[in-house]
Amino acid sequence: GGPLGPAMKKKNIPQPSHPLKSFNWSKLAENKLDGTVWMELDDLRVFKVLDLEDIEKTFSGYQRQQDTFLINSMRQKESEDDTMTSKKVKELSVIDGRRAQNCNILLSRLKLSNEEIKRAILTMDEQEDLPKDMLEQLLKFVPEKSDVDLLEEHKHELDRMAKADRFLYEMSRINHYQQRLQSLYFKKKFAERIAEIKPKVEALVKASKEVLQSRNLRQLLEVVLAFGNYMNKGQRGNAYGFKVSSLNKIADTKSSIDKNITLLHYLITILEQKYPKVAQFQEELPHVPEAAKVNMTELEKDIKNLSTGLKNVEKELDYQKSRPQDSGDKFVSVVSQFITVASFSFSDVEDSLQEAKELFQKAMQHFGEDPARMQPDEFFGIFDQFLQAFAEARQDNENMRRRKEEEERRARMEAQLKEQREKERKARKAKENCEEDGEFDD
Amino acid sequence: GGPLGPAMKKKNIPQPSHPLKSFNWSKLAENKLDGTVWMELDDLRVFKVLDLEDIEKTFSGYQRQQDTFLINSMRQKESEDDTMTSKKVKELSVIDGRRAQNCNILLSRLKLSNEEIKRAILTMDEQEDLPKDMLEQLLKFVPEKSDVDLLEEHKHELDRMAKADRFLYEMSRINHYQQRLQSLYFKKKFAERIAEIKPKVEALVKASKEVLQSRNLRQLLEVVLAFGNYMNKGQRGNAYGFKVSSLNKIADTKSSIDKNITLLHYLITILEQKYPKVAQFQEELPHVPEAAKVNMTELEKDIKNLSTGLKNVEKELDYQKSRPQDSGDKFVSVVSQFITVASFSFSDVEDSLQEAKELFQKAMQHFGEDPARMQPDEFFGIFDQFLQAFAEARQDNENMRRRKEEEERRARMEAQLKEQREKERKARKAKENCEEDGEFDD
Repeated sequence: GGPLGPAMKKKNIPQPSHPLKSFNWSKLAENKLDGTVWMELDDLRVFKVLDLEDIEKTFSGYQRQQDTFLINSMRQKESEDDTMTSKKVKELSVIDGRRAQNCNILLSRLKLSNEEIKRAILTMDEQEDLPKDMLEQLLKFVPEKSDVDLLEEHKHELDRMAKADRFLYEMSRINHYQQRLQSLYFKKKFAERIAEIKPKVEALVKASKEVLQSRNLRQLLEVVLAFGNYMNKGQRGNAYGFKVSSLNKIADTKSSIDKNITLLHYLITILEQKYPKVAQFQEELPHVPEAAKVNMTELEKDIKNLSTGLKNVEKELDYQKSRPQDSGDKFVSVVSQFITVASFSFSDVEDSLQEAKELFQKAMQHFGEDPARMQPDEFFGIFDQFLQAFAEARQDNENMRRRKEEEERRARMEAQLKEQREKERKARKAKENCEEDGEFDD
Repeated sequence: GGPLGPAMKKKNIPQPSHPLKSFNWSKLAENKLDGTVWMELDDLRVFKVLDLEDIEKTFSGYQRQQDTFLINSMRQKESEDDTMTSKKVKELSVIDGRRAQNCNILLSRLKLSNEEIKRAILTMDEQEDLPKDMLEQLLKFVPEKSDVDLLEEHKHELDRMAKADRFLYEMSRINHYQQRLQSLYFKKKFAERIAEIKPKVEALVKASKEVLQSRNLRQLLEVVLAFGNYMNKGQRGNAYGFKVSSLNKIADTKSSIDKNITLLHYLITILEQKYPKVAQFQEELPHVPEAAKVNMTELEKDIKNLSTGLKNVEKELDYQKSRPQDSGDKFVSVVSQFITVASFSFSDVEDSLQEAKELFQKAMQHFGEDPARMQPDEFFGIFDQFLQAFAEARQDNENMRRRKEEEERRARMEAQLKEQREKERKARKAKENCEEDGEFDD
C-alpha cells in the first residue's frame, strides 16, 4: 500500500546489480504529497510486473566507449554488433542524456585535460587558457548535488568512467568550484561590461546638457510656437508652449499650393533666410541620437547586475581568505587586486548614472514634460526623429532648389538659342532680300 | 516680453485674413509652464520677422478640389498650374494632414452619403450598411473637440468644405456620436467575441476534469515512478512523486544498447505488453491540446474587456432613455433588447470561467504542483508535449517493429531460396552421377 503519515519511510525498492543510466526527473518534496494523486500510487506493485533484468540490460550505466559507432543505420549496426562487441572497452556512464553529450562537445573544443582545467581555475587562469565563451559554457556543466552523490558512489571505478563523468567528478573535488568559476567569469567580463555601460550613461549626461543649453533649439521652439499660434484657432491656438512630441507633427501639415511641400520644408526655408544659425541647430545636439537608443530600465538592470556580481565576488573572497590556502591557489591574491580596481570603476559608473538621472530630470522639466511619464529613449527619441526629418526635408529643399535652378538655366539657354536662331533667320532673310532685289534698304 | 503670473492673458497674435491649415500640436497646459524654457520664449518677436502673407498663401485652408492632380512631377505641374488654376473649384479644408487623407479613403470605401451614414448610426444599422471593419475605421475618425470648434466656426461655408471636413461636421451634430458608434461596434462584435472566449473556457474545464479523472494517466505515473525509482540512486531516488514536467525528461535517457532507443520507447513497449489500456491514455485526455493553448492572463483580459464594454453600453442606454427620442432614433429599443440577451450570455461565460479556475486549481493540487506558479498553458502544455512525444515514439516503435519483421521475412525467404538451390544442386549432381555411371546406387 501507499506510504502513511507525514514522515515517509524509505521504500523497499529492488536494487539493480550494477549502476543504471539515470532518469533526470524532479522529485516532488514529501511535504507536498498530501491530498495528491501520488498518495494513491504504489510503484512497488509495478515492480512485480516489470522485467527488471531487461531494464538493467537496456539501460546499463556501463556502455561501450565508442558508441558514436552505433549511430548508423540499423542494418550496419546489427552486423557490426556481432563482430565488434568483444573488442570495445566498457565505460561507466552515470550522467545521462543530452547533458553528457553537450559536456563532451565542450571538452573536445576546450582541448585541455581535466588537470589543466583544474589548474587554470585555481590560478584564476593566469595563463589565459579559458576564453570567455568557454567559461560561460563551463558554468552550464557545474556538477549538481545529485551528480556528485552518484559520482562519489563510483569513485573507485574512476578509470572506467566516461569522459564527461570523469570531468564532473574531478571538478566536484575543487573547493567552491562553482563560485570560483563565477568569479573568474565575472572578472573576465568586467571591463567589457563597463565599456558597454559607460558610453550610454555619458550619452545621457551630454544629451541632457545639450537640450538644456542649446540656444538654437530654444529659438527654433519660439519660431514653431509663432507658426502654430498663427495657424491654429480656437482650443488649439493661443498656446504658450507645446509638447516636444509636436515637433514631429510639423511635417503632417501640407501646403495648399504644393502637396509635396510640408510645413517643415517651409519652416526650414524661413530659418535659412531669417535665422541662419538656427537652421544648424543639430550641431548643438551631437549626443541626442545616441541617447535616444538608451533604455533606462535596461541600463539600471545592467548596473544592478554588475553590483550584485561584484558583491558575490567579494563574498567569495572573504570566504577564501578565511580558509587555509593550498599552494597553487591564487584566488585570494588575484581577486583582492581585481576587487580594488573594479570597485573604483564601478562607483565611477554609479556616480555618472546619478548625474545622468538628475540632468535628465532637469531636461524634462525644462520643456514642461512630466519626468515620471517619459523615459530617456522616448524623450531623446522625439528630438532624434525630428533631427532626422529636419535633415531630410532640408535635403528635399536643396534638391528642389537645384532642380529649379537647372530648369531656369535651361530656359535661359533655350531663350538665348531662340534669340540666336531668330537673329540668324533675320540675317538670312536680309541677305535673300538683298540678293533678290540687288538693292539696299537704307 | 514673456507672460507673467499664473493666469496667462490671451496673447495678441496677428490674425490671418482667412482660415489656414492647422498644425496638429499638443498644447502644454498653462499650469505646467512654470520654470520651463517656454517662459523665456516670446512668439510675438517672431511675428515681426515672418512674412505672414506668404504663410497665408502657402498654407491656406482653401485648396483646389482635385489636388491629387498636383501629385505629379514638378514640370507637369508647373505647366498645368498656369492653365488649370482658374477652372478648379476651391474647397475649405480645415482638417489637415494624414488624418483628412485617411478619412477620405474610408469614405470612398464606404460608398455611403453622410446622410446615409447618419441614418445607419441612428437606427443602430438596421439595414446592415456598416460592416464591422468599417465601424472600426469610423471610430478612428470621431471628430475631436478642437475639430468641432474649428468646423463650427465655418459652418456657414458648409458647401465649400472638403469631403472629410463635411463628414466630420455632419457627424459632430449627432448627439453622442462617439458613444453610439462604440455601442454599435460592441453590439456587432459581441457574438464573435463570446464565440472566441467560450471554447477556451470550456477546454480548461474539460481538460482539468480529464487529468483529474483519467485512470490510465494515474497508472502511467505509477509505472514511470517505478522506472525512476529503480534507475535513480541517492538524492534522486526513493521518490514518492515527481513534478509533471519530468514526463518530458523520459526521452532524454538513452538505452546503452542502442542510442536510437530512449526510455520513452522502452516504456511504451512495456505498457503495450503489460498495461495495454494505459498505452491508449491519450484517449482519456482529448481536450488537453486545446487547453494547452489557453493563456489565462489574456483570457481574463478578454472577459474583463467584454464586461467593461457591456457596462459602457448600459450607461449609454441609461443616458439615451433619459432624453427625448427623435423619430428615427432606434437606439433605446435596439440596445435594450441587446443588453438583455448579451448580459445573459456574458454571465454564462463568467460562471464557466469561475468553474474553470476552480477545476484548474484542483488539477494542479492533484499532482502536487503549486497553483500559484503555473498557468494553464504551461501545465497542460507539459501534458500536451508528452502526448505528442508519446505518439511519435510509438510510431518509431511501430516502424522499427515493421522493419524488423520485413528483415526476418527476407531472411526466411533467403534461407528458403538457399535450401531450394541446394536441393536443385544435389538433384542435378545425382542426375550427372547417374548418367556418368549408368548405375544405380541402391
